[in-house]
Amino acid sequence: MYGLISRLKAVPGRREALVAVLLEGSAGMPGCLSYVVARDPADPDALWVTEVWDTRESHRASLALPSVRQAVERGRPLIAGFGERHETEVAGGHGLGG
Amino acid sequence: MYGLISRLKAVPGRREALVAVLLEGSAGMPGCLSYVVARDPADPDALWVTEVWDTRESHRASLALPSVRQAVERGRPLIAGFGERHETEVAGGHGLGG
Repeated sequence: MYGLISRLKAVPGRREALVAVLLEGSAGMPGCLSYVVARDPADPDALWVTEVWDTRESHRASLALPSVRQAVERGRPLIAGFGERHETEVAGGHGLGG
Repeated sequence: MYGLISRLKAVPGRREALVAVLLEGSAGMPGCLSYVVARDPADPDALWVTEVWDTRESHRASLALPSVRQAVERGRPLIAGFGERHETEVAGGHGLGG
């Protein structure tokens, strides 16, 4: 399984709008086993997104989905910048239902 | 929901043993909505663990479970050290089945 751990910063005051776009845009992505959006309690503009995919190819293919492309368009003006980003090789776990 | 993103380093050559202990020890924890163990492909000793809990209290209570206490005992000699650790406030997502 392929994983991603990413941190991003919203435009000040727009974090909740970005959360909504990310959650809506990530529904029903084939091969996506887990997609979690979390606020950083220590930074009012920061978010963490953690993802698990069956394969790296499924993740790549998701970027072409109409729902994801629309979310990227809507999310772009809400994002101030990107922080650390880690690709992982997921060994297993619980809550990988998709 | 309460989240944790943690990085840890296994004793050299013991990462797979640590993965097994973490996965086994994390089964059936009340209130745990997601628990994912992932290898860092860039460091043969490093792991990421990402967790989602219904509440912070459920996470705290899990540390007293016999299964978790046993895993801590078995995992301790396999761990070389801890890296970054982030508490998060999980907004939502997919694959939060427990």
